[in-house]
Amino acid sequence: MREVGVVGVGHTKFGRFNGTFLDMAGAAAIEALHDAGIDLAAGKHGIDQVFLASMGVGQVNKLSGAASALVDTLNLRPAMAETIENGPASGASAVKIAYMAIASGLVDTVLVVGAEQMRVLSGWESTDFVATMLHPEAEYPYGLTLPAFAGMFTRLHMEKYGSTEKDLAIVAVKNHENAMLNPVAHIHLVPDLHAITEDEDAGVINPYVADPLRVYATCPMSDGAAALVLTAMDTDRKFSHEPVRIAGVGQATDTHVVAERPDPLDLFAVRESARIAYEMAGMGPQDIDVAELHDAFQILEIVESEEVGFFPRGEGHLAAREGKTRIGGEMPLNTSGGLKAKGHPVGATGVSQVVEIVRQLRGEADGRQVEGAKTGLTTNFGGFGNNVVSIILTTEKER
Amino acid sequence: MREVGVVGVGHTKFGRFNGTFLDMAGAAAIEALHDAGIDLAAGKHGIDQVFLASMGVGQVNKLSGAASALVDTLNLRPAMAETIENGPASGASAVKIAYMAIASGLVDTVLVVGAEQMRVLSGWESTDFVATMLHPEAEYPYGLTLPAFAGMFTRLHMEKYGSTEKDLAIVAVKNHENAMLNPVAHIHLVPDLHAITEDEDAGVINPYVADPLRVYATCPMSDGAAALVLTAMDTDRKFSHEPVRIAGVGQATDTHVVAERPDPLDLFAVRESARIAYEMAGMGPQDIDVAELHDAFQILEIVESEEVGFFPRGEGHLAAREGKTRIGGEMPLNTSGGLKAKGHPVGATGVSQVVEIVRQLRGEADGRQVEGAKTGLTTNFGGFGNNVVSIILTTEKER
Repeated sequence: MREVGVVGVGHTKFGRFNGTFLDMAGAAAIEALHDAGIDLAAGKHGIDQVFLASMGVGQVNKLSGAASALVDTLNLRPAMAETIENGPASGASAVKIAYMAIASGLVDTVLVVGAEQMRVLSGWESTDFVATMLHPEAEYPYGLTLPAFAGMFTRLHMEKYGSTEKDLAIVAVKNHENAMLNPVAHIHLVPDLHAITEDEDAGVINPYVADPLRVYATCPMSDGAAALVLTAMDTDRKFSHEPVRIAGVGQATDTHVVAERPDPLDLFAVRESARIAYEMAGMGPQDIDVAELHDAFQILEIVESEEVGFFPRGEGHLAAREGKTRIGGEMPLNTSGGLKAKGHPVGATGVSQVVEIVRQLRGEADGRQVEGAKTGLTTNFGGFGNNVVSIILTTEKER
Repeated sequence: MREVGVVGVGHTKFGRFNGTFLDMAGAAAIEALHDAGIDLAAGKHGIDQVFLASMGVGQVNKLSGAASALVDTLNLRPAMAETIENGPASGASAVKIAYMAIASGLVDTVLVVGAEQMRVLSGWESTDFVATMLHPEAEYPYGLTLPAFAGMFTRLHMEKYGSTEKDLAIVAVKNHENAMLNPVAHIHLVPDLHAITEDEDAGVINPYVADPLRVYATCPMSDGAAALVLTAMDTDRKFSHEPVRIAGVGQATDTHVVAERPDPLDLFAVRESARIAYEMAGMGPQDIDVAELHDAFQILEIVESEEVGFFPRGEGHLAAREGKTRIGGEMPLNTSGGLKAKGHPVGATGVSQVVEIVRQLRGEADGRQVEGAKTGLTTNFGGFGNNVVSIILTTEKER
C-alpha cells in the first residue's frame, strides 16, 4: 500500500472564535497550507481533495455542502470535497478517509480540516447538541447526556478499581499544566490540586456536574479548527517539511447503546482500534513515545491509557498518581493539554490530536516537547465509545 | 489500482416513509445485503465499512454518529462507519469514498447507504433546508432558493438556446412515464403534455413555482433510502451477483457562488467530473448505453446531457423533443423516472442513481429495460453545480 505522510499542520486558538464557520475552518487550513510550503496561487496548490470534519456544521451552523464552500473560500477549485461526520471522532475519521484516498492512488495530496463552533450555542443547547450522538431511540429520548453517562462510568470505575475524585483531578491538573505550554489551548489556568478536591471551598470552585464528576473532571465547550496536509510519500513533490508518516490507522464500532455492553467499563472499540493500528504499523504500545487520548472526561484518559496498552487494566489511575503520564514521565499523555484544557471542539478534536503529535515528532513542541519522541498515538472517541479511531504517526522509516 | 464492483442493491419506495431515519436507512441496507447474498449473522457478514450519505441527518433529524447507529442496528459491528455529506451529491460522494476505501486495500467490502427524510419538514422548511446548500454568506442570507436559481438559469437557457416551457414538460412527461415502470418511484402518474402546457387550465394544474419553472419542471420532496454493496474484484469471495464494475469516478468543484461564474449556463463541474470519469474508464460518451442525470429541475437534464457529451451544446432540448432520450431512443436518460418522478431524497439520490444503472446492466429493469445495456453513467449534482460527481459502471471486462 502507498505510504502517506503529514507535511502541514494548522490550528486556531481554541476557545471562542469571533467569525463565521468558514472563517474559522479557513484560518486553520491556510496555516496548514503555509506550513507545508504550498503555493496558494490558483492552479498551483496541487490539492486534489478536501475533507472537512465536523459534527455540527449541519445541526449547529445550518450549512450543507460546507466542504465545497471551503474549497471555494480557499481558491482550491476544482479540488474534490466532502464533509465527514462521526460524532466527536469526526476528525480522526477524516484523517482515515484521507489516508484511504491517497493510498488508493486516486489522489496525491489532501487537505483535512476539522472545525466546530460550539459557543454559538447556550450551555443547555450545547449539552443537547452533544447528546445527539447517543442512540436516538434507546438513549437520547430518556434525557441521558454525556456527563450523565460519564458520571455513571466513573462511579463504576471507582467501585471496581478504587480510583478516586482526586485521581481525576490529578489528570486534570496535569493537562492544565500542559495547556499552559500550548499557545493554542483554550484554557491557560492551572487549578490547585488541593483547592479543587480537599479544600473546604472545593464544592464551590469545582462543583459537581454529574456526581462523581466535577467541573475539573470534564472538558469545556470550545470553538476551534485544526488542519493537516497529507500527501503520498512516493511522489517527487517537495514540501517545507519531511513527511511524518502515518504508520497505522485502526477503527472499530461497539454497541451504540451503552447499556447493551456486557461490561460498560470495557471500552472494546478503543482496544480494537488501537490493536488494528498497532498491527498495521508493526508496532506495539512499547513503541509509542507520546499519545493524545480522548479525555472529554478525565476518567477516559485513565481507562483509554489501559485499553491502548500503556498500563495494565485497572492501573491507569495509579500511573497518573505516580506521574508516569506527565511530560518527562515514562508515557506522556495529552501534552497538548488534552480535551480538558486545550478544549474539545468536537469535530476538530481528532485533527487537533494529530497536529499535536506531528509537532512533537518534528521537535516543535517547545516547552512541552517530549525529548526524542519518534512515534506517537492518537485515540479519538466517538459517542460513548461506539466508534473509535486510533492513528499511529512516526518519523521512523518504513519497515 | 484495485478494481471495485457493485454486488448488491437495495432501495425503499420513495415518497413518504412512515418510520424513523434508521428504519428507512436500515430497510434499504438489508435489501442490498440480501441482494448480495450476504449472511447477516453476526461475524459472518464480512462488511468492513459502512458509509452513510445524508445531507440532513444532522440538520433535519438532529442525529450525529448516525452511521455508527446504523452499523449497530444492522448488527455489523465492529465495521467502521462514517457519514458523508456533500449536499445533494452526498450519495455519489459516498460511493466515490467507498471506491477509494476498497481501492486502497484497507477494506474489501463496503456497504453504502444514502438516506434522507424530507417529508418530516413542512414545504417552507424543506425549501429552507435545501437552500442551506447555497453559499452561507453570499447567497442564502439574501433569500435565494434553489427554485429561484433554477428559474433564472432556465430563463437564460431559453433566451440563449431557444428552449421552451414545453421542452421542460417533454422531459417531465418522459420521466413520469419511466417512473410508471419503476415500482420504487415516488409518483406513479403521467401528466398530459398538452394539459400541463397549452391547455387553458395549465396555469391551475401546473402553476408557476419560479417563472418560467412550473410544478412539472421541478422535483418533489421525498423520503427515501438506497443502498449498495461494493466489493474488491480481486478477492475469492462469492456473492449472489457478478460484480458490476465501477470503471470511472470523477468529481469537480466549481465556484460556490453561482454569480461568480463567467457564464452561469456553463456547468463546468458537470463537464469536468464526466471528463475525469471517462478518462479513468478509458471511455467516452459514445460508450454509454444509459444514464441517470440529476434532473432536480428539468432544465438540468437538458444541460447535463450536453455537458457529459451526449449532445452538442445548446441542443439537449432538441434531442428531448425528438425522443432521443426516451427508452428505445438513442440515449435513454433517467429510465428510473429521475429526480422528477422517482423522487429526490437529496442524500439518497446519488446512491439511487447507481442502483438504477446496476439494475439496467444486470437486465433487471423490467418494462424500462434498455436492451443490451452494458455501460451506464450517473451524474449527481451538488449545490447549484458547485460539486458534481460522475460515475461510470460497466459489465464490460477490464481494459
